Amino acid sequence: MPAIPATMRQLQSLVTPDGELRLSVETVDTPRPSERDVLVRVDAAPVNPSDLSLLLAMADVSQAVATASIDGRTLTAPIPAPAMGTLAARIGKAMPVGNEGAGLVVAAGESPEAQALLGRTVGFAGAATYGEYCVASPRMCLPLPEGATADDGASSFVNPLTALGMVETMKREGHTGLVHTAAASNLGQMLNRVCLADGVPLVNIVRRPEQAALLREQGAMHVCDSSEPTFDADLVDALRHTRATLAFDAIGGGQLASQILNSMEAAIVSPEAPYSRYGSDVHKQVYVYGALDPRPIELRRRFGFAWGVGGWLLTPFLARTSAEDLQRLRQRVADELITTFASHYTDQISLGQTLDLTTLQRYARQATGQKFLLRPQR
Amino acid sequence: MPAIPATMRQLQSLVTPDGELRLSVETVDTPRPSERDVLVRVDAAPVNPSDLSLLLAMADVSQAVATASIDGRTLTAPIPAPAMGTLAARIGKAMPVGNEGAGLVVAAGESPEAQALLGRTVGFAGAATYGEYCVASPRMCLPLPEGATADDGASSFVNPLTALGMVETMKREGHTGLVHTAAASNLGQMLNRVCLADGVPLVNIVRRPEQAALLREQGAMHVCDSSEPTFDADLVDALRHTRATLAFDAIGGGQLASQILNSMEAAIVSPEAPYSRYGSDVHKQVYVYGALDPRPIELRRRFGFAWGVGGWLLTPFLARTSAEDLQRLRQRVADELITTFASHYTDQISLGQTLDLTTLQRYARQATGQKFLLRPQR
Repeated sequence: MPAIPATMRQLQSLVTPDGELRLSVETVDTPRPSERDVLVRVDAAPVNPSDLSLLLAMADVSQAVATASIDGRTLTAPIPAPAMGTLAARIGKAMPVGNEGAGLVVAAGESPEAQALLGRTVGFAGAATYGEYCVASPRMCLPLPEGATADDGASSFVNPLTALGMVETMKREGHTGLVHTAAASNLGQMLNRVCLADGVPLVNIVRRPEQAALLREQGAMHVCDSSEPTFDADLVDALRHTRATLAFDAIGGGQLASQILNSMEAAIVSPEAPYSRYGSDVHKQVYVYGALDPRPIELRRRFGFAWGVGGWLLTPFLARTSAEDLQRLRQRVADELITTFASHYTDQISLGQTLDLTTLQRYARQATGQKFLLRPQR
Repeated sequence: MPAIPATMRQLQSLVTPDGELRLSVETVDTPRPSERDVLVRVDAAPVNPSDLSLLLAMADVSQAVATASIDGRTLTAPIPAPAMGTLAARIGKAMPVGNEGAGLVVAAGESPEAQALLGRTVGFAGAATYGEYCVASPRMCLPLPEGATADDGASSFVNPLTALGMVETMKREGHTGLVHTAAASNLGQMLNRVCLADGVPLVNIVRRPEQAALLREQGAMHVCDSSEPTFDADLVDALRHTRATLAFDAIGGGQLASQILNSMEAAIVSPEAPYSRYGSDVHKQVYVYGALDPRPIELRRRFGFAWGVGGWLLTPFLARTSAEDLQRLRQRVADELITTFASHYTDQISLGQTLDLTTLQRYARQATGQKFLLRPQR
């Protein structure tokens, strides 16, 4: 087992009381795993939208400035005043960043679950994967199959289990088809592959023609592009074909959730049906799992009373999942790691490069088709 | 048993293709109950907000005009153009009106459940109680206790079972306290009495000082008046005291649902708690059961990811309720008919008087403290 240094480097994000974001790579004590946990040497970690929201704290990165000091480089950027209200609880507290990654388990607590992982390369979810080492719970680790590298497993936890969690939720709640927004994302492409393999009808909603083309090339049957003039009718038509009554929405602002519910209702109620001011009795649900659009969610109710909109996150879903079901989902990810659940990266960066101004402005864009992999050991 | 005439009078609401509402009292064949149903001679029926939404079809009653014809009086009023889209399915179809009432069961189908009600005075829910006779399902009938009149039972179904249904839903979904908007309504006063009797913490949200005073006189412990400058802080404070995490909202437009969720989250998360961009893991729920405000629902998300907003209606709730539980709820309504579940009426009107211009404009106002009782036999 490689030696574990007493200190390590870690990317940290700090919001100051006067509305400034400060990013820096700090030297901190290497954490020690408790009895039930393991310590992972982080070899690779993806940069996902959910990481960026914590890392960047809604700062205006177009105005970011790099400052060199005796301790190394610091990157600062102004945070718009309206955003500061929601950040109150983190002001003045430097926070580690990074939700998942992969690497070698170099130390483990005494528990059998932890010991079983010692020396294995795992994909894992944690709260501080943008550092050289990170503590993880065995429940949040996925031992990679023989021959798989940390690169293969860097994105093996959050997106694969989220995609499978969406399909599981659909089944548990009695729906038979899905709608997904921001559907050309890395997660969206995985979900499309899972649904194609499992015969689950899926309506993919995207915002640009090239995203629609990408999904169609990957075999997607129903793709609706909100930039097309025919979007409204296309969506109702796709919902008529799929009978999908459950949507997962990464956007979470504006009128899209409302439009999905209204289109579901329009697809359910025949034009010849007698008038009911209470709408159909078919339950229509949108789960919001992201916040790509920071505006309020606006619900224009033309969808009767059998509806719901709510939050959805992977961690509470996993907490509601039995050990047996969780093992089944993890096994599938391991089995299909380099097929269904493969991720592709366009850029690889070191911890230090996260503070490079041009690099930051590129990964902050969250452009479709562009994906960064962080290599904390470099 | 009184003789049943071959024809009867019934209030009807018609939306014309050119955007006009027409109300009239029509003579129609008296319906016959099927094998499983009963026929009720409607002696009393309340005018509730849910009745008015079907009756008035969002028409501008301030511009209503009464016309006398050979067949009797017709009342017409213009419907604003934006509302017509949602009314498409009812254009050209004259609709009966009235969701509940009380009266004598004068005929019954062959089924034992129907026969058991023959000759009884019942409160009941139906789709056409604003007429001299109405068919009802025994499941939607509440036989009134000895000595109770049709007036006592006119509002014994919808509001009492809705109030009890809210408390049942709270228990089924694991909450321990309630929030109610438009809380000074007839329903709200009932819910307040139920919660006081059952020891359920209840936050009453009202819109005017006199409504707050009314509820406080009736023993309400937590009343928050949205017209007060201290409303925001009052609401968080009441939620801290009650730990209520489930709201029933009759308003259904604007930012109130969002404010309730944000205030619940503020009451749950201690100011000293570490920052989490995912919010607390305590599920916060708002069920929308009305539409007093026709604007879109605007959700400003400061409440994390453990939340839901959805529709709630009495009929689907009853469909999800076991026969045993339903019997328990109905028995309670019967036992407490003239106490907990008493309704008070300020005005009594005949079928013909529903078409009186001044009367219409009064009952259309839905003013708190004012409640109309229709007497179809007059």
